[in-house]
Amino acid sequence: MPLLKSWVETANAADHPFPLNNLPYGVFSIGDREPRCGVAIGDMILDCQAAEAAGLLAVGENALFDMPFWNGVMEAGPQTWAALRARLTEILAAGAADQASAEACLVTAAGATLHMPFQVDEYTDFYAGRQHAENMGSILRGGPELPPNWLHIPIGYNGRASSVVVSGTPIRRPLGQTKAPDATMPSFGPCKRLDIELEMGAIVGTACEMGAPITTEQADDMIFGYVLLNDWSARDIQGWEYQPLGPFQGKAFGTSISPWIVTKDALEPFRTEVPPRTEELLPYLSESKPGLYDIELQVLMQPKSTDQASVVATTNYSRLYYSAAQQLTHHAVGGCGMNAGDLLGSGTISGPKKSEFGSLMELSWAGRKPFTLVSGETRTFIEDGDTMTLRANAKGDGFTIGFGDCAGEILPALDDPFTRN
Amino acid sequence: MPLLKSWVETANAADHPFPLNNLPYGVFSIGDREPRCGVAIGDMILDCQAAEAAGLLAVGENALFDMPFWNGVMEAGPQTWAALRARLTEILAAGAADQASAEACLVTAAGATLHMPFQVDEYTDFYAGRQHAENMGSILRGGPELPPNWLHIPIGYNGRASSVVVSGTPIRRPLGQTKAPDATMPSFGPCKRLDIELEMGAIVGTACEMGAPITTEQADDMIFGYVLLNDWSARDIQGWEYQPLGPFQGKAFGTSISPWIVTKDALEPFRTEVPPRTEELLPYLSESKPGLYDIELQVLMQPKSTDQASVVATTNYSRLYYSAAQQLTHHAVGGCGMNAGDLLGSGTISGPKKSEFGSLMELSWAGRKPFTLVSGETRTFIEDGDTMTLRANAKGDGFTIGFGDCAGEILPALDDPFTRN
Repeated sequence: MPLLKSWVETANAADHPFPLNNLPYGVFSIGDREPRCGVAIGDMILDCQAAEAAGLLAVGENALFDMPFWNGVMEAGPQTWAALRARLTEILAAGAADQASAEACLVTAAGATLHMPFQVDEYTDFYAGRQHAENMGSILRGGPELPPNWLHIPIGYNGRASSVVVSGTPIRRPLGQTKAPDATMPSFGPCKRLDIELEMGAIVGTACEMGAPITTEQADDMIFGYVLLNDWSARDIQGWEYQPLGPFQGKAFGTSISPWIVTKDALEPFRTEVPPRTEELLPYLSESKPGLYDIELQVLMQPKSTDQASVVATTNYSRLYYSAAQQLTHHAVGGCGMNAGDLLGSGTISGPKKSEFGSLMELSWAGRKPFTLVSGETRTFIEDGDTMTLRANAKGDGFTIGFGDCAGEILPALDDPFTRN
Repeated sequence: MPLLKSWVETANAADHPFPLNNLPYGVFSIGDREPRCGVAIGDMILDCQAAEAAGLLAVGENALFDMPFWNGVMEAGPQTWAALRARLTEILAAGAADQASAEACLVTAAGATLHMPFQVDEYTDFYAGRQHAENMGSILRGGPELPPNWLHIPIGYNGRASSVVVSGTPIRRPLGQTKAPDATMPSFGPCKRLDIELEMGAIVGTACEMGAPITTEQADDMIFGYVLLNDWSARDIQGWEYQPLGPFQGKAFGTSISPWIVTKDALEPFRTEVPPRTEELLPYLSESKPGLYDIELQVLMQPKSTDQASVVATTNYSRLYYSAAQQLTHHAVGGCGMNAGDLLGSGTISGPKKSEFGSLMELSWAGRKPFTLVSGETRTFIEDGDTMTLRANAKGDGFTIGFGDCAGEILPALDDPFTRN
């Protein structure tokens, strides 16, 4: 598929993240006005509430944009998703009959504040990156052997929906309980091993009933779109707490997502197969179409002392072993009801080379191997004032599908409020 | 505190679960009318929407009962909670000036259908029963040694809010992936080791901000009330999936709660200390008042073939090692935001004697020791058609605080929809 030309000229540049081929969904506000749904096109945002009021987006019986998040559109179902996308493509295309009316609904993206694009219903985080799982094995257990279930189950755990925030929200370094390997007793204080996890998030757009298994085809149909996702992790808190019931407070202080939901339709040209199976999967996890996407991913790190961000990792979404459709199928197969607004983190995405590792735990090999930034500073884990940014681009024929940055700055921990002197 | 007398005569019996001292909060419907909030008093339910319309419950500026769940009251805050309870006590007390108007708002509980009393925001399950943790160690790892963190951390994991249903909702036996210890490959099919977990659920009534730690005093103030909770568990699915990231689909097919929220005020006379500490806790977990309650608990099992339920376990909420306030504090201390409607499962409650074990895993010692029901049938785990019921009573001076049964019948698994012949 080539570039689709828009009358919004900035959208036609081959490296612009928001061409007509993309049309990602976000929520924005201007000044102190109420947030509302918008669609990114070039350097502009289409105000959906205004466009709906102007009669430009009449794709269903009910108003879709009377709320400042995209859950209403999700709940309207896949037919509405398709109709809305077709209509947006029509009014924003070069030569559109409705150009003048649509132009009146555009605002400049540079002047807008972006908000959470949807209300997160529940948040689940998976562990589908094989290289990441092998690296963690090597670091924590002395060898890259996968857990016995790993090649059979897209392993996941339930995270905390209240932790999910939009890109740009500062993240406070968490307090928590840790125990050094040589200590006899645990202690309480600020996390000393603060990390990121480079992930993609799949957003469930339609519900499935409790007690009713789904196929991978149905699961793929249920997915509304994707965001970048940084599963901030306190490695020292996680290390002490996670046996036997899994990660808990080490993952609950912040989960950042990129501000634009890139729809499944926009990613369709980039579908790619999961890697060859080492063990044959059980039939319920078999897929009839490629479940991953060819999306280039970057991790950038920028200390407060400099204007220069360093690229610390570059990898690709297609490095994962399980697709979001497989993860969602496994999630629901035992009878777990899923709802519009459920968010599924892919798991940390790492490639085989060191430059492709999607966490600082891997990049610094648990802090044993500091790495150097372009400013000359070295890092093992994240220091106060550092900003971490995830970036994603799918490269098409003369166009780019971008997600918008997923960024967050780390604020210093609060003083320990529990010290009793 | 003695029995508080009500003009609803059935509420004055010493063994009735819903005296004036209790006043638990539920949601009911009559026939095909819309569900609405109600308060149990003896064999009757006070229709809160009707009572509010009649001007009997004017405790705030806004209507509290224009929605069919108690989240609105929770969000109105502790002052409103206290004012509402005081007003309910006043209008339902023997000799009340408003008896005639209140009487017009009563419906017969026997003719009502009970619904979810609140919308579950997020669901967390803890592991605070020491005897249960030791028993699971003995069964699974050959010895009762606790995990190294157990005496320092109220261990918990995030569960699935979409799995929570009200008592009476049938639970379908889940399908899932399991692997027998001697099998080379996993297989897919119905759970063969279906179990219950006897727990109490604490309901968070007020929010705390992301990034802001709380004390145990603040945590206790945030708790709105308690329900009985059955954390249905598929032991064979859980056993294969739970390493390294904890329980997932083995716990996601159903979580039953009792229909009445018993308020913290109603339980106040039954407060009791957590057991002596084996290891001193870190200061953030210290408590200034007793955090558990003296509540008798029972587990009943009834096969479809008989009208007789067998009591298979009897224990007490005070057997736990950590209080709900300690759990909530640990949950929020790292910066995790909590919201009204969050539900915290206590963890399985077991006492030291076999008759006090709160799961079939313990009662049948992982299926090795079948037990016999009053009908003469034997069981290790739950069979199709079995109904499991949890019951709770706090015994006061001439009165009882009951919760209403927390019951669910197990339906047969669906036929495997993934078999490809």
